[in-house]
Amino acid sequence: MTALRPLLITAGEPAGIGPDLVIDLVCQPERMVSLPPFAVVGDPALFRDRARLLGVKLEIIEVVPGQSITPAPGVLPVRSVPLSAPVVAGQLDRRNAGYVLACLDEGIRACLAGEASAIVTAPLHKGVIIDAGYPRFTGHTEYLRDACGVDDVVMMLATENLRVALVTTHMPLSDVPAAVTADKITSTLRILHRDLVRYFGVSAPRIGVCGLNPHAGEGGHLGREDDDIIAPALTLLREEGMVLSGPLPADTAFTPHHLRDSDAMVAMYHDQGLPVLKYAGFGRAANITLGLPIIRTSVDHGTALDLAGSGRAERGSLDVAIDQALVMARAATQGK
Amino acid sequence: MTALRPLLITAGEPAGIGPDLVIDLVCQPERMVSLPPFAVVGDPALFRDRARLLGVKLEIIEVVPGQSITPAPGVLPVRSVPLSAPVVAGQLDRRNAGYVLACLDEGIRACLAGEASAIVTAPLHKGVIIDAGYPRFTGHTEYLRDACGVDDVVMMLATENLRVALVTTHMPLSDVPAAVTADKITSTLRILHRDLVRYFGVSAPRIGVCGLNPHAGEGGHLGREDDDIIAPALTLLREEGMVLSGPLPADTAFTPHHLRDSDAMVAMYHDQGLPVLKYAGFGRAANITLGLPIIRTSVDHGTALDLAGSGRAERGSLDVAIDQALVMARAATQGK
Repeated sequence: MTALRPLLITAGEPAGIGPDLVIDLVCQPERMVSLPPFAVVGDPALFRDRARLLGVKLEIIEVVPGQSITPAPGVLPVRSVPLSAPVVAGQLDRRNAGYVLACLDEGIRACLAGEASAIVTAPLHKGVIIDAGYPRFTGHTEYLRDACGVDDVVMMLATENLRVALVTTHMPLSDVPAAVTADKITSTLRILHRDLVRYFGVSAPRIGVCGLNPHAGEGGHLGREDDDIIAPALTLLREEGMVLSGPLPADTAFTPHHLRDSDAMVAMYHDQGLPVLKYAGFGRAANITLGLPIIRTSVDHGTALDLAGSGRAERGSLDVAIDQALVMARAATQGK
Repeated sequence: MTALRPLLITAGEPAGIGPDLVIDLVCQPERMVSLPPFAVVGDPALFRDRARLLGVKLEIIEVVPGQSITPAPGVLPVRSVPLSAPVVAGQLDRRNAGYVLACLDEGIRACLAGEASAIVTAPLHKGVIIDAGYPRFTGHTEYLRDACGVDDVVMMLATENLRVALVTTHMPLSDVPAAVTADKITSTLRILHRDLVRYFGVSAPRIGVCGLNPHAGEGGHLGREDDDIIAPALTLLREEGMVLSGPLPADTAFTPHHLRDSDAMVAMYHDQGLPVLKYAGFGRAANITLGLPIIRTSVDHGTALDLAGSGRAERGSLDVAIDQALVMARAATQGK
């Protein structure tokens, strides 16, 4: 087995809790002995100032691309990207929007160049990036998709016993029915199937697929899309060898009978799948982008500006995002 | 405190698991000592035959309206309504569709007449009733609404630690955005608020309300309805004194912070609220119709034709439906 290349963590919006979370992470001795080499992408001054605000003693070591240092408690290895303006915890500043994207760019570059095994992202603030002059910015996931030059990616959330992937993500509910096309369903399922095999050690994935309408349309009484669009798409994919159940009524899809038989559950839209995922794994869920040429996981929460610098930010989701990235990176290494 | 009038249980579709569930119920000595007087509405011959199929020794006592007998293990008190055709477990027969509705009518009549405290319904089969010549039949809940002559009812599912009420219920997803009107939201919340007070002993209900779009529209970036329709409706109701939180992003509405502060959560549509409810309370959830002049609860599952007569039907949801009906009936009695 090849040794893992370092993991990179982008600290995200500097005024949010991202810096707090990585500082809290390196202060946990039990986490530091269990992690492979990693580095945080950001400005060393940001972490120094935030550690002071938190009353935490922190040693910052700047690392260059490709450099690995063994994790040690209280030591933060930083791949330096300079801030554009000083940071006040909790206060957004448009001048640092370019910095947030530059950190992300460095993570993507390092993964594509083979210097890093995976990128784990702390939350950014979409609004401040749009306001700062990037009007077409729609989020981490889409930015990574475009930066990596792929046509389609899949957003999957994972917690201890549940994985939920989405066919459509961030759009008004009224746009969902038209967006659930046969092409989108087949693309989502092919990406999910392939990545369950290559990143999660599932040799023959079994995937549950929710219908679009309540009761999966109840034989056409509650909408036609389940029978006319989703079911034929699943038939096509079964002929390619995929093991799929559905279209399932979403209200019973997340019950033991179906979950026991599925390596992942696919929801047609955001609020069909994520309320149950976040109920099941609150504070212990990660957001994983499938379909990229790199491995990327993320926390499942926002910047929590009001908690930045307070010492009250919860690190659970970052821990899961790191653990999931390592699972994926190890599987990818073994597969080579 | 006035003594409770008897509870009525309609056994629903005779070929389904409804008869199995009530037979199983009366065979539990610990349940029988804890229940107040009740009767099952249906044909005594059906229960006799099903008990034989299940290999269960059952004494059937026919009761007349207003008659109470003390529950005893192995004794099934039946308010007799005659079948139209013999029943084969697992095989739907259109000739008995009228029987199913007659049982329901008797339950409604008895509640409206003050002879019964509440009605608990086992599952019926919508398709066979429609096929039998009731093309406008759309379900138990709507039938009860029309039979009781009210304009609007609210479907609420409840499990041990969670209550979820719906603004819209059984309709294609593409019809949902237009159906979420200010009138429908205010009607739903007024009914829910009033019934939490009168039936659930909540003196000042705190209600969480999900938005329609993902992230509750994210300030209009993901749809306008949350800001333009839902938020103003909530403002109006707050001015009337209701304690409401929302519109909440649905994916985080069902997390401890919000659930701790809410006596019920309102979802805008079926698959926004019910997947999490059934994940949380699988097999232990009841469906409650609010807004009727009578108390009605129901199991949250279907007829499970393949399990009828097998002895493998699970009684959990019926138990919860009975328990919820008793909670409601006792609160209504004390309120008088």
